Amino acid sequence: MANFGFSRLRVVNPYDVAFREARSAVGAAPLLQRAEQFDSVAGAVADCRLVVGTTSVGHRELQHPIRRLELGARQILRTLPRAGVALLFGSEKFGLSNDDLSHCHWLMRIPTAGQDLSMNLGQAVALCLYELARDPKAATARPAAIRASTAGEEEQITTQLLDALRQSGYINPRTAASTEEKIRRLVRRLQISGKDAPVLLGMLRQILWKLGDMQ
Amino acid sequence: MANFGFSRLRVVNPYDVAFREARSAVGAAPLLQRAEQFDSVAGAVADCRLVVGTTSVGHRELQHPIRRLELGARQILRTLPRAGVALLFGSEKFGLSNDDLSHCHWLMRIPTAGQDLSMNLGQAVALCLYELARDPKAATARPAAIRASTAGEEEQITTQLLDALRQSGYINPRTAASTEEKIRRLVRRLQISGKDAPVLLGMLRQILWKLGDMQ
Repeated sequence: MANFGFSRLRVVNPYDVAFREARSAVGAAPLLQRAEQFDSVAGAVADCRLVVGTTSVGHRELQHPIRRLELGARQILRTLPRAGVALLFGSEKFGLSNDDLSHCHWLMRIPTAGQDLSMNLGQAVALCLYELARDPKAATARPAAIRASTAGEEEQITTQLLDALRQSGYINPRTAASTEEKIRRLVRRLQISGKDAPVLLGMLRQILWKLGDMQ
Repeated sequence: MANFGFSRLRVVNPYDVAFREARSAVGAAPLLQRAEQFDSVAGAVADCRLVVGTTSVGHRELQHPIRRLELGARQILRTLPRAGVALLFGSEKFGLSNDDLSHCHWLMRIPTAGQDLSMNLGQAVALCLYELARDPKAATARPAAIRASTAGEEEQITTQLLDALRQSGYINPRTAASTEEKIRRLVRRLQISGKDAPVLLGMLRQILWKLGDMQ
């Protein structure tokens, strides 16, 4: 919850031992200290205008409209600015009872591959809150640009690499011109970043120094 | 992994006790039985053409391009049909080491609200795989249509409700016409489903029977 910016936790008849242990979890202490305890689901959701239950695919007696997480989250986000929304999770072991479900306006399910698999409660909560918190625009945002090396730096690298290759006997004098062009193009294809260019130049300089030393 | 349809788990020097215990997890047994063990990250990712590391926001010495999960997942999905992609997770306690990270082409981070919060490894894996598996189209899909009641059913309900209200003395004879209109409109606003219409009619019939009995 804290990871995705949610702060209002309400617990209905929590298992005391686990709840008190959880209070000491790193980073989540303030959230857990503010958690409100209730005796009934009705009490916990009383001031909410939309109550959404969460369920596994395999829920048997389906009396509720059910939406996939992707769609349900969009509908919750449309409601949130106007009204309180409760997202209801069942216990790790039993999930939501039919009585719990009867307080819900509709249900949301995490789209999973198999029908018979179970999901850890913490994972289910994390997935639902991530889907509410994620930024759809971020999916199409351009990654932070990495400053490319300049053509001058690329040519410096090319020159020194060609020097090293000449001194090592890699370049056949008969085909030298075409080899040089190939290597120049190869260096451009590497898309060397501005940060990596001096590192590569340093390496080549050192190799050239050693090669010169050996002659 | 099983929940989101991923099947190839590779583990590098797993902590034997935990790994053997996990083998008995409900539903995940086949996946864990097929898990491949490696002595090094290099070995585990050798046949992959894209290696993506996962990291928390607070990773200090950032030498890699880093993409938010929403964007990173789209890029992985574009690569997947053509080439194997490795998604690299660190240990619960220490995350990925700098040596591990040096095998990655770029890094992906889960967008979280706080900088200092930590995330459970299982939750981090679930979020990354959900983001890869979720269907963007599902977010705009229309929810399964619920068959609405017919105008005839609505009018039957209206008639019986008006009967019950008349017999209960709710309707003032002086304003009866406008009250009836109001109630007719109210019944339409309820958007009663085809499934609920006979239930409501049954209730009203029973109340009418009891009211008639009392006169």
